[in-house]
Amino acid sequence: MMKKLVSMSLKSSSDGLEVLDQTELPQREVWIKVGHPDEMISIIKQLKVRGAPLIGVAAALSLAHYALEEKDASRVRNLAHALREARPTAVNLMNAMDRMLARVDAGTDALVQEAETIFIEDVELCEKMAGFGAELVPSGGAVLTHCNTGGLATVGVGTALGCLAKAWSLGKRFSVWVDETRPLLQGGRLTTWELGQLGIPYQLICDNMAAMLMAKGKVNAIMVGSDRIALNGDFANKIGTYSLAVNAFYHRIPFYVVAPQTTVDMKCETGGDIPIEERNPEEVRGAGGAFGKVTWAPETCEVFNPAFDVTPAELVTAWVLDRGIFKHGDIAKGALRVGG
Amino acid sequence: MMKKLVSMSLKSSSDGLEVLDQTELPQREVWIKVGHPDEMISIIKQLKVRGAPLIGVAAALSLAHYALEEKDASRVRNLAHALREARPTAVNLMNAMDRMLARVDAGTDALVQEAETIFIEDVELCEKMAGFGAELVPSGGAVLTHCNTGGLATVGVGTALGCLAKAWSLGKRFSVWVDETRPLLQGGRLTTWELGQLGIPYQLICDNMAAMLMAKGKVNAIMVGSDRIALNGDFANKIGTYSLAVNAFYHRIPFYVVAPQTTVDMKCETGGDIPIEERNPEEVRGAGGAFGKVTWAPETCEVFNPAFDVTPAELVTAWVLDRGIFKHGDIAKGALRVGG
Repeated sequence: MMKKLVSMSLKSSSDGLEVLDQTELPQREVWIKVGHPDEMISIIKQLKVRGAPLIGVAAALSLAHYALEEKDASRVRNLAHALREARPTAVNLMNAMDRMLARVDAGTDALVQEAETIFIEDVELCEKMAGFGAELVPSGGAVLTHCNTGGLATVGVGTALGCLAKAWSLGKRFSVWVDETRPLLQGGRLTTWELGQLGIPYQLICDNMAAMLMAKGKVNAIMVGSDRIALNGDFANKIGTYSLAVNAFYHRIPFYVVAPQTTVDMKCETGGDIPIEERNPEEVRGAGGAFGKVTWAPETCEVFNPAFDVTPAELVTAWVLDRGIFKHGDIAKGALRVGG
Repeated sequence: MMKKLVSMSLKSSSDGLEVLDQTELPQREVWIKVGHPDEMISIIKQLKVRGAPLIGVAAALSLAHYALEEKDASRVRNLAHALREARPTAVNLMNAMDRMLARVDAGTDALVQEAETIFIEDVELCEKMAGFGAELVPSGGAVLTHCNTGGLATVGVGTALGCLAKAWSLGKRFSVWVDETRPLLQGGRLTTWELGQLGIPYQLICDNMAAMLMAKGKVNAIMVGSDRIALNGDFANKIGTYSLAVNAFYHRIPFYVVAPQTTVDMKCETGGDIPIEERNPEEVRGAGGAFGKVTWAPETCEVFNPAFDVTPAELVTAWVLDRGIFKHGDIAKGALRVGG
């Protein structure tokens, strides 16, 4: 029997597992019933489920539901490995599946419990990060964010966007600059939708407009999430994060990365060790989703389409983890090297 | 009688004036016969004709064709003023119309001759810039460019893209990173199309990917055009240029601006004096053109949509004008303060 677990974009109970198709937002709210873990792999690859923390939770729950039907441990193990490989950059997925793999031999109940624990922990981690990060949100100013890092990207309140939601709920007043986040427009489609739901004022911009806002003094802080953090504090996040970090450094604007400790990869000493996923050229030749599909570039044109980039620690003002706020001195003393 | 004048995107002769509708490229090549200057104003506002130098030439020719039919000087003068206001940032339009206004009292032949001279001068200015700029194009490396600054943006070989075309024709071999240039995608639609025609290898990227390419050492130089240059060397160009300039500075990559002397505004001491056009929020909520129209953001979402930004002189490595290549020392000595 499974607990009833519900987040903004995931529902799990004894009746099964459902995920919100994020490629359909904000035009339509379509929930997908997930059967076999192979379906979850396809859903993750197509970014219908996205957000580093959410991917890990969704994959774990998918495996738990499968284990309720399939008693052959080797089949469960094989699918856990396949889920683990669904996307290469976010470490949360790998960590979650490693935890599940360690419980396969303990049986179905142990697997179900582990998946439920991963869900509940993500909610708690988000709450803790939001509590710390809310302190860093400036009152009366504007915060710039990139991609989507809220209740859609996690099963809790979110990472970077969670800090903004928390600060708002505590009575701080500010506005948000939302980078549209080409090519897949997670900012334009999802963060706008979430901020609308939260009632926080925002303005949508193209990614290339952020720097001129910084030059005009209209950005008081930048908060982003992360898909993987190296032990030296370098981190991978959605493509475009690095350009923001360089601009923040140049304009002396605080630049915060918000992620749970589970995003730290104990096997990565530096950002150079983080593999960067390259995706389909079609994503850059146009745009597609529930809103329609258009191709504006010549159909055969060559494209470079990295999904992530790596921001070196030297450009980060502070790392907001569920364990607290860390500065350069902490990182240099090995503050990230725990729990591995 | 009018000379036969032909460029990649404009045709003028005694038979009339035609312009290539650049919002239809690269999907369709649609030529528009331009009648009354009011039509040209609408065409310019809708960006069917775009590119700072081209706008000036097209407006001047439109007025000359009108003057052939309309002998009332005050009507010609009124339309010249209206054309001059069609877009606020590019100074070439204002310069061209000021030249036309100065000839209204001299009669129709004088107006026709002035417009033809503006066309021919633009071709010559492009040739000269291309000759100087080609020297700066690295052999065997890659150049990054933004927006469209080629044969579509001028009536000659172009400004920044003209330098690349010239260098290629002289036997230099290199590749080009093309910023897609949100929101109107002049890079993704037009520069890709032009580079394809020229046979120069390129890869299209989203604007937010440029910085990570710089960090990886994959950008050897950046070349952009300009819509207006202030006397101190600050310049306005397509939104996103400033972010590239900050990143080029941080990564110690040469950053060149290529524009004719006619782009220098003798009335602007610094970039702070340059007005920045803000455009329709719809442009940022989605994308539209001959390729179709899509809206991905919530339909009522707030948007900030500046069409240009200003890059301060301190981030520029050199200014490539039709008069030669200028460095900081030259600018400080007042090198831009001529011909006014």
